[in-house]
Amino acid sequence: MKIDVGFDYLGEKNLPNFNRYKRKIASIDKMIKERTGLGNDYLGWLDYPLSISTSLLDDIVSTANVFRSKYDTLVVCGIGGSYLGSKASIDALRGLKTTDPMEIVYLGNSLDPNYVHEMLAYLKTRNFSVCVISKSGTTTETSVSFRLLKDLLKEQYGDKYRERIVAVTDETSGALRKEVNNEGYKAYVLPGDIGGRYSVMTPVGLFPLAAAGIDIKAFMKGMNEARIDCDNSDITTNKCYQYALVRYYLHTRKKYKVEMFNVYEPRLTAVSEWFKQLFDESEGKDGKALLLTSCTFTTDLHSLGQFIQEGSKILFETILYVKNPDNDIVIKEDPENLDGLNYLTGKSLSFINQKAYIGTLKAHYENGNVPNITLTLDKMDAENLGYLYYFLMKACAMSAYLLNVNPFNQPGVEVYKKNMFHLLGKEGY
Amino acid sequence: MKIDVGFDYLGEKNLPNFNRYKRKIASIDKMIKERTGLGNDYLGWLDYPLSISTSLLDDIVSTANVFRSKYDTLVVCGIGGSYLGSKASIDALRGLKTTDPMEIVYLGNSLDPNYVHEMLAYLKTRNFSVCVISKSGTTTETSVSFRLLKDLLKEQYGDKYRERIVAVTDETSGALRKEVNNEGYKAYVLPGDIGGRYSVMTPVGLFPLAAAGIDIKAFMKGMNEARIDCDNSDITTNKCYQYALVRYYLHTRKKYKVEMFNVYEPRLTAVSEWFKQLFDESEGKDGKALLLTSCTFTTDLHSLGQFIQEGSKILFETILYVKNPDNDIVIKEDPENLDGLNYLTGKSLSFINQKAYIGTLKAHYENGNVPNITLTLDKMDAENLGYLYYFLMKACAMSAYLLNVNPFNQPGVEVYKKNMFHLLGKEGY
Repeated sequence: MKIDVGFDYLGEKNLPNFNRYKRKIASIDKMIKERTGLGNDYLGWLDYPLSISTSLLDDIVSTANVFRSKYDTLVVCGIGGSYLGSKASIDALRGLKTTDPMEIVYLGNSLDPNYVHEMLAYLKTRNFSVCVISKSGTTTETSVSFRLLKDLLKEQYGDKYRERIVAVTDETSGALRKEVNNEGYKAYVLPGDIGGRYSVMTPVGLFPLAAAGIDIKAFMKGMNEARIDCDNSDITTNKCYQYALVRYYLHTRKKYKVEMFNVYEPRLTAVSEWFKQLFDESEGKDGKALLLTSCTFTTDLHSLGQFIQEGSKILFETILYVKNPDNDIVIKEDPENLDGLNYLTGKSLSFINQKAYIGTLKAHYENGNVPNITLTLDKMDAENLGYLYYFLMKACAMSAYLLNVNPFNQPGVEVYKKNMFHLLGKEGY
Repeated sequence: MKIDVGFDYLGEKNLPNFNRYKRKIASIDKMIKERTGLGNDYLGWLDYPLSISTSLLDDIVSTANVFRSKYDTLVVCGIGGSYLGSKASIDALRGLKTTDPMEIVYLGNSLDPNYVHEMLAYLKTRNFSVCVISKSGTTTETSVSFRLLKDLLKEQYGDKYRERIVAVTDETSGALRKEVNNEGYKAYVLPGDIGGRYSVMTPVGLFPLAAAGIDIKAFMKGMNEARIDCDNSDITTNKCYQYALVRYYLHTRKKYKVEMFNVYEPRLTAVSEWFKQLFDESEGKDGKALLLTSCTFTTDLHSLGQFIQEGSKILFETILYVKNPDNDIVIKEDPENLDGLNYLTGKSLSFINQKAYIGTLKAHYENGNVPNITLTLDKMDAENLGYLYYFLMKACAMSAYLLNVNPFNQPGVEVYKKNMFHLLGKEGY
């Protein structure tokens, strides 16, 4: 397994006896595999990393390469699962100050006029293209932005603007599919049996990643490896299910209210956002579930660290730690040593960051009595990131079924939309 | 008062009887004013907006203008309260895709080699300057980065590199003050009686803001107006204390565990981060306090919205809403109307965002049974932002004293540092 799941800083009393849960976990695993549980018509993601065709991947890469050669900017126009996976992956794999010539920006995820205005103004200075992502094509945030983007495309590039658009939408139905058919945009299919928060493995995530120059075949290879490794009904050996069970146990037996997902690299902050959607939207229903929150360490140890260390005992932490950095820096001797840092001479930043990680685990667990689960990856690359996503998706499905909720619907998201449509005077509301 | 504090979506049962708390609030107010409570040696912020001298403000503006005319980038090198206030303010007031010629970037807030490496590589392509902010000059994240930044400055600009450095540090003591005295950097004083999370009103926040082209005199004017408006011991009329009392009441009487601070504009996301430090670090001690978390709406309604609407009933929301945008966009008629948006023809984005705001309040409160407090500002500018900060600082002091904790220390932050120093083999640990 590419992910090392650690319970060394959890505390013995917080570790369930896996043997006692053998039958329960095996029966949920069977239910997932045989597609008999709640929401089973949204289990398309389960085998998608195996079934996705090489020709689809090749087509995505080749279209993305045309975009990379012709344009300097891609606007990913989508909200929720339609952009979070892309943003998480592109930040994680390219960093926050990439030198890649293709800039990726995000629109269609906000109604704020300040944001939309400044993004459109910025795009006027760029040679831009658009990837619009929407199952229906009528999500307000996304369709309003897409209309504005089309106006700007027409204004800047005339009739040839259609070449600059790629759509990812339903195979046959919906407003965006109709528009694709009318206008002849290049389009990819968002499979009907895969929900937004599981869609990073589909063209929803794959086209933006490829446009960002990321190796999507390696990404899917990692997904498929995780699919194989997590396909194991035995809780005593399946680390993915162990993670699901431990968080369920901490919540239902030990009464923790919050899981805090923490990373040690700013480029992974958006992965936390993706993680939060995955679990909160999958589990937060019927008055149930852990609330997900997140920090980026060591940065936030200087803001939220105080609460974790000494505040209310309502949370446990899940730490994602990547052992080997892409680049490292060694501290040099300073003859004056005014800052007193010479004791670090010859040490690398990754060494220091790793000591901060261990020191924080000890501080929070031993002194602060906060249980910690650790997820460790050897390095951050497309293959390992794909692996991580699938691992967490599978853990989430198990976790939600343990809570006895449908992991794949999100009925609560409709309520604000209905109120908003009513207030906007939309017909039928 | 520039902030409208609303309890219309709170629920009658969640609103304390203010009259019953008159004496308690008045006595804490007296304790703050007379500086007799816990941590009273850190109450310097209380009157700082009044006592700050025009000559200091002029000096900051004039130095910042020199930097603006000579360099294209300022690195703010600090962690926690030494950068969060600057980042929050600069994002809020300049937006996320500013056209201002002075770029502001942040370093000294992470030990991650990937992040530090890519920032240094980026700075090699810029004509950069540094504002280093540290009370002691020995905070690991900041001093390691500052060492690396000095190396790069020397490499790129030779002996004149000192001109490109501004320091904000203690008036007389500490490693950074010593270095300032030795090297002759331009320096400003971080007052000894103002803690990091209250320091945005001091040169800690003011120099970066001025370098970003923000009107710091208007910012301090807003701070001082809030100082006057919040200086009122009567809970029945002081909205600042009402906010503090209501959140205390929701936590201690109604057993809510989490306050979720939500904004409706991506440029305000960093204000939420500043807010989270302010309250979590002030209150999260002795096993007490609400945990702060945050969302940016409507974006996160498509990720965390499901949990808020239908998940565990452990949280209430505090919404920051700004009525008037800096720029607006009107939806135009589309003859084809494939996206079905023509019912919005002639409507502005601010109008739609406002309906989303009201629709969400109703959805969460009426359908979801989640109490909401609303903080409404007329517009976002330097004066109003200064006002907002002071209002929240004063509310936080009251709130922490209601919990009977010291609002101004952060003993828990030291624990991970001690462990880290021990693991790194630093002398004395």
